[in-house]
Amino acid sequence: MSKSREQRVAESIAQSNRRSFEPVVKKVQLSNEYLARKVCPDIEAAVRACNLSDGMTVSFHHAYRGGDFILNQVMDVLADMGFRNLTVAASSLSGCHDPLIGHIQNGVVRKIYTSGLRGKLGEFISQGHMQEPVEIHSHGGRVQLMQSGELIPDVAFLAVASCDTFGNASGSLGKNICGSLGYAKADAQFARQVVLITEAIEPYPHNPASIHQDQVDFIVKVDEVGDSSKIGAGSTRMTTNPRELLIARRAADVIDKSGYFNHGFSLQTGSGGASLAVARFLEDKMRRQNIRASFALGGITASMVDLHEKGLIDKLIDVQSFDSAAAASLARNPNHIEVSANQYANFGSKGASVERLDVVVLSALEIDTKFNVNVITGSDGIIRGASGGHSDTAAHARLAIIVAPLVRGRIPTVVKDVLTTVTPGEHIDILVTDHGIAVNPKRPKLAERLHEAGIDTVRIEDLYQRAVMLTGRPDAIRFTDRPVAVIRYRDGSVIDAVYQIAADTEG
Amino acid sequence: MSKSREQRVAESIAQSNRRSFEPVVKKVQLSNEYLARKVCPDIEAAVRACNLSDGMTVSFHHAYRGGDFILNQVMDVLADMGFRNLTVAASSLSGCHDPLIGHIQNGVVRKIYTSGLRGKLGEFISQGHMQEPVEIHSHGGRVQLMQSGELIPDVAFLAVASCDTFGNASGSLGKNICGSLGYAKADAQFARQVVLITEAIEPYPHNPASIHQDQVDFIVKVDEVGDSSKIGAGSTRMTTNPRELLIARRAADVIDKSGYFNHGFSLQTGSGGASLAVARFLEDKMRRQNIRASFALGGITASMVDLHEKGLIDKLIDVQSFDSAAAASLARNPNHIEVSANQYANFGSKGASVERLDVVVLSALEIDTKFNVNVITGSDGIIRGASGGHSDTAAHARLAIIVAPLVRGRIPTVVKDVLTTVTPGEHIDILVTDHGIAVNPKRPKLAERLHEAGIDTVRIEDLYQRAVMLTGRPDAIRFTDRPVAVIRYRDGSVIDAVYQIAADTEG
Repeated sequence: MSKSREQRVAESIAQSNRRSFEPVVKKVQLSNEYLARKVCPDIEAAVRACNLSDGMTVSFHHAYRGGDFILNQVMDVLADMGFRNLTVAASSLSGCHDPLIGHIQNGVVRKIYTSGLRGKLGEFISQGHMQEPVEIHSHGGRVQLMQSGELIPDVAFLAVASCDTFGNASGSLGKNICGSLGYAKADAQFARQVVLITEAIEPYPHNPASIHQDQVDFIVKVDEVGDSSKIGAGSTRMTTNPRELLIARRAADVIDKSGYFNHGFSLQTGSGGASLAVARFLEDKMRRQNIRASFALGGITASMVDLHEKGLIDKLIDVQSFDSAAAASLARNPNHIEVSANQYANFGSKGASVERLDVVVLSALEIDTKFNVNVITGSDGIIRGASGGHSDTAAHARLAIIVAPLVRGRIPTVVKDVLTTVTPGEHIDILVTDHGIAVNPKRPKLAERLHEAGIDTVRIEDLYQRAVMLTGRPDAIRFTDRPVAVIRYRDGSVIDAVYQIAADTEG
Repeated sequence: MSKSREQRVAESIAQSNRRSFEPVVKKVQLSNEYLARKVCPDIEAAVRACNLSDGMTVSFHHAYRGGDFILNQVMDVLADMGFRNLTVAASSLSGCHDPLIGHIQNGVVRKIYTSGLRGKLGEFISQGHMQEPVEIHSHGGRVQLMQSGELIPDVAFLAVASCDTFGNASGSLGKNICGSLGYAKADAQFARQVVLITEAIEPYPHNPASIHQDQVDFIVKVDEVGDSSKIGAGSTRMTTNPRELLIARRAADVIDKSGYFNHGFSLQTGSGGASLAVARFLEDKMRRQNIRASFALGGITASMVDLHEKGLIDKLIDVQSFDSAAAASLARNPNHIEVSANQYANFGSKGASVERLDVVVLSALEIDTKFNVNVITGSDGIIRGASGGHSDTAAHARLAIIVAPLVRGRIPTVVKDVLTTVTPGEHIDILVTDHGIAVNPKRPKLAERLHEAGIDTVRIEDLYQRAVMLTGRPDAIRFTDRPVAVIRYRDGSVIDAVYQIAADTEG
């Protein structure tokens, strides 16, 4: 055959009508500069490298909770660089993020997506100082919003404890470890560009990696990305409050007699004192009845790690390590498994672990007589909570338990109508309070089983009446017509809205 | 505030102009049927569940190499079900896949994407019996084709050694293990639907998982997905051929004196006897010079595992386990790291490990005096090879070495013009044969370093002349004008084509 290769290729391209371009034949030399091309000297340089521009979306994860140093640091840099109208998509926000107020006031931040809002920032937003309503999503719902295309971060700034110069990153190896990077993994998957902010750069290849080299664009080393010791503070600290311990003990009794406490059962406990304490009270029952759990899910705590290491829980499925003991366990225990938020709880996932959950123990700021739950707004109407995995887990768990004191100070927890619905009552099976236990009337068999086991239950209306008796009927909170936050259900739909509190009820 | 929640939500939706739909509030019961919803009784049921239709693309991975049972089994089912005009996207094809011939003849298969073709299937295609040319891609190039949207599998049928009922799957835990699922991971990421075909269903959650529950649609259990013992057969078996051992020893000398043999260097050896044997000859040199490799990449072999376990290679980065010893190591050694084909070699990846490679040792069917390499067509013009990671690694490695005998029987390896270019000569640094070593003239410093170290080199033209002297000038192979395969370079461009061999040169 006499044709040249060039002729043959040209003909073949013409024949197959195939997109064609010149192959890149220049050899890329493996220079040190090339190898270190992702590493930027500081956050500003990384932002420039990403070509961030006004109106774009920047995202953050909240694995460091109240100990996060990165969101404020990055936002300060973005403000100094003169960016405006940014959307901040944080997997959640804590009290330490109050400095966002300044960035909202200065027009740097126009819009917020988050699972939670607390502190002065929650007040500021509830008072209507933000132009656009905040979008409150659940942990699974956040991935759903990304999957649907509504929320695609232009740049994800992801704090990690350590990584190599190519971007293989870990949350559980290093100094200030956060453990699971479950939320960060979703951002690494969906964001257009990913900037790692790390405390340590380790030799290539760094492993085991939670975020991988093919997901990372740029890397910035800083002294500290967060304070590990503050992860377990606040809502994930083990309670010593006798009333919370009483509620936890009763919830453990309910689980025991519910019909779902069988060898191989699975368990999740949410944040909040009583919820976290339930695991402690299950230990004895598991030993006595020779029951082992197949897995514990969710925010993993020191108590769960303890039960795992004692052989009472086979595996831990961890989207977020709730304290430094859990973070350390992830590096140590081979059956402590890190999962992304998509594997954990996304409605649109091909398989979310919440779908396989037997028992979940959740807290509530309010629960109403239809079992609807509010975990977002306080009794004053101000946003001071987080959607978290509440609606995600309740939607699937065979037994979704709410644990809560009947009243908090002069504030009733059981109300006629919750101020804000985060989780529909349809999905809540039972309420355990310090004044009695109420089963959702949609679960008559559960009520029957508990009754047969000698556990007394009451109607939730009775608990409501008792709360009213104790606290009196609280004055209605006055709101304006202006929404300050929209509650997105886990499937992306709008399930409720939070309104600006009227000026005369402020402070 | 007197408005109902419904009113508030409706207004909020209107105000924010947001996509809205009813939240899914019906609780999905955790029934056993629900939990097992992905498990299908047989392949046919899984195909029906996927709504496969004529003209669609089905994909397979080749981690079991010649021991793969699944591609033939699935294609037989698809043929029996009456499907037509399918595209088969296999990460590679081996001699065991000859039964595809029947499916091509019957119109079940219209198009093939693969890295390699061998055996009767290679002959059949070279003889022009397929309507559309086969697309030959490199291992990295396959991911590039997926990333660009050209090659999106409608259904990926992925053989795994074990998984749970939700789809968390492993290639290194079970009976017939294949080790790394590096190619399968890419399919799991890009395919519209994923069917796992597994030998064992293990309790949930199965871990460590290489393919995850949120990537899997359906699961079928079969008796055996492959024969582990055949993975290491053929082109990945350790040679005892004295000529190959001689070449390997010389290549090891070249590496030693190349300037790239330093503490922390990285290494990949391709398939083929001499290439695989190089690692063996490096051991002594590493010990004597107190050199440890930072990582070995690629198809990981028993020799690499041996050096790793002796402490001479820090980490193994494994896209494909080349033998059962390597497959077993993946489950045992924490620093034996599994990576996807995207992390391994994709041109469009944010970070591919080939970019960080110091030394790669590759084989060749032919190499010409411009150092272009053919690893696809035999001297008879028939397709009997695989593109593999050849062009991916050569494009980046600081030192890309070709090892090959000068002649094979009466067939010259060094030629004036290769029949088919898979890797451009621009990317090849040196050729090591049993008759001499030739450095690419584009690398004068490398030639200088070898010369100073007492390693003689010759011009590649001299090797070509010597080959001609030994074998005579072979008759030109006669082809028709009809392309039977198109060689896609790693960036997606067309770098060459293979033509139908003329009838009188057949058989």
